[in-house]
Amino acid sequence: MLEDKNPQRTPLSELGEFKLINHLTQHFKLEQDSSIKGVGDDAAVLRFKDTNVVVSTDMLVEGVHFDLSYMPLKHLGYKAIVVNLSDIYAMNAKATQVTVSIAVSNRFPVEALEELYDGISTAAKLYNVDVVGGDTTSSTSGLIISVTAIGTVDNEKVVLRSGAQPNDLLVVTGDIGGAYMGLQVLEREKEVFKVNPGNQPDLSMYTYIIERQLKPEARKDVIELLEQLEVKPTCMIDISDGLSSEIIHLCKQSEVGIDLYENKIPLDTQVISTCEEFNIDSTTIALNGGEDYELLMTIAQRDFDKIKGNPNLTVIGYVTEKEKGMHLVTRADERIPIIAKGWNALKNQP
Amino acid sequence: MLEDKNPQRTPLSELGEFKLINHLTQHFKLEQDSSIKGVGDDAAVLRFKDTNVVVSTDMLVEGVHFDLSYMPLKHLGYKAIVVNLSDIYAMNAKATQVTVSIAVSNRFPVEALEELYDGISTAAKLYNVDVVGGDTTSSTSGLIISVTAIGTVDNEKVVLRSGAQPNDLLVVTGDIGGAYMGLQVLEREKEVFKVNPGNQPDLSMYTYIIERQLKPEARKDVIELLEQLEVKPTCMIDISDGLSSEIIHLCKQSEVGIDLYENKIPLDTQVISTCEEFNIDSTTIALNGGEDYELLMTIAQRDFDKIKGNPNLTVIGYVTEKEKGMHLVTRADERIPIIAKGWNALKNQP
Repeated sequence: MLEDKNPQRTPLSELGEFKLINHLTQHFKLEQDSSIKGVGDDAAVLRFKDTNVVVSTDMLVEGVHFDLSYMPLKHLGYKAIVVNLSDIYAMNAKATQVTVSIAVSNRFPVEALEELYDGISTAAKLYNVDVVGGDTTSSTSGLIISVTAIGTVDNEKVVLRSGAQPNDLLVVTGDIGGAYMGLQVLEREKEVFKVNPGNQPDLSMYTYIIERQLKPEARKDVIELLEQLEVKPTCMIDISDGLSSEIIHLCKQSEVGIDLYENKIPLDTQVISTCEEFNIDSTTIALNGGEDYELLMTIAQRDFDKIKGNPNLTVIGYVTEKEKGMHLVTRADERIPIIAKGWNALKNQP
Repeated sequence: MLEDKNPQRTPLSELGEFKLINHLTQHFKLEQDSSIKGVGDDAAVLRFKDTNVVVSTDMLVEGVHFDLSYMPLKHLGYKAIVVNLSDIYAMNAKATQVTVSIAVSNRFPVEALEELYDGISTAAKLYNVDVVGGDTTSSTSGLIISVTAIGTVDNEKVVLRSGAQPNDLLVVTGDIGGAYMGLQVLEREKEVFKVNPGNQPDLSMYTYIIERQLKPEARKDVIELLEQLEVKPTCMIDISDGLSSEIIHLCKQSEVGIDLYENKIPLDTQVISTCEEFNIDSTTIALNGGEDYELLMTIAQRDFDKIKGNPNLTVIGYVTEKEKGMHLVTRADERIPIIAKGWNALKNQP
């Protein structure tokens, strides 16, 4: 009925997720006085009178971001909230509200949605945010969850991705790579289960990394810690797609380079042992495995004494001049360029 | 791998969309000082210092809310913004920003998404809102668009669904039923096209109602008009699901009854003629056809002189005591109870 007026066809996979969103949104100008920061950071920053409101939104799609064969719905609801709050914290802001929209096929009974909302409610309580709105609709297949998180931050406290300066320290919270290795274990057990449904797997060796995958936490505690320590990072981002991908974002937006030290990257012992078991290099996992929801930040050298020895904060590298580029400095003291291999939603599509 | 621990199964269709969202969100308490109004109105109201921020979110799902065989992507992008802004205006607020998340299968080329974003951009410019964030991800099937709209409103201007008082006038903007009849024409032409793809239909008789379906507008102009007229409605809602459904929302939340006069309902001549052609009762369409995105409001009697004769505003009934219930007063002066037959996303599912 409607003819195709545009016979040109560029496959989505040619651009990938980040280039695609850049490509689509590059012409959007900010016209409102209240729009301080639009697309391109963890969250948008709006300023109404004296208040900075930060807004972030994320969509989780069944078969792309989660697999209900090993992801309990309660955990999924919890995770959907956490991944959005993580973006708010990455602005050095306080999360206050969320809205939740779901599209669901009617293969789900009401009780399944109750479980999902139980997880949403549990996360909202723990992180002290209110669920203030949402939309429920049907989908022709699968479950889609879209969450928008809202927070506030004082003017002088906003931390963007663009503030890193040469000589700043590169700091990461917690440890990384766990969520990805937890996913590998769950995927393996799913295959085992297909062959032998009666098998009761012993997953006690993997409890930490499985929890990292199924029930990640956002680093609200770190934002509070930074305030106590009186440290304002010069830039910050949350690690959703993998360390290398986030480093590239920071360097591009701050127009700096980075030296990342392989021997400083914090890895849990379960990540190391599971990498050995799977015969995968743990540094590769730390660089490219996503979904840890830790925070990656840069801080001024003068703040080093304030964070020194804190178990939540690990210095993993240094900011350099842009011309020096982005490198991993290996244990053998080789310098390897950091390239994006992070999880790419559009290429991984079945 | 994970056992079903809850063998109870209540089909989603048993509850329907509104009951479902109520059921799922009824236990959410508002704990944040900044959360003024949560789930249950057109938008949430948040108060940060002296600023009221209103937030609304909606999800559009291919095969449920739109059919790409007759909905051009540019129009779809435009409509996705408009339906969300409509919720902001229904709070008597000024819309300022939107975030847009899309999930898309890779059957769509980049050029298709460009068209979609072209529509988004066109609407954003026309309504003077900024696109400040979003997420792009893949879907295993179809296109899903989730938009969150943000606005501001002065404290004394917020209009909720709960403020109607007996003797208030029931007022509707524009005319209604057009979007639904436009959809009927488009569905018919789609069937004709299947049989005879060479057919070039003459749709000139239906331009207004087809535009109402494919390119609806939100009543930003009415919010500005009300301000000029110095009229603050006692309650307001936008008409997305049909007049009867919205009247029921207003009456429940305001704890009032309503008498709606059949002979006052504003219908465009194309709605009347197309209803005759399709042999459908036009009042039924006005009551139950959705997607007009007009505003339904109640205003105090003392404001009647201010709106009298304005072509944008039609008085269609009166607010009564709750005990009197909700009725359509027909041309034959019969009183027929108003019941919800509005578009129900979860029951219409294929």
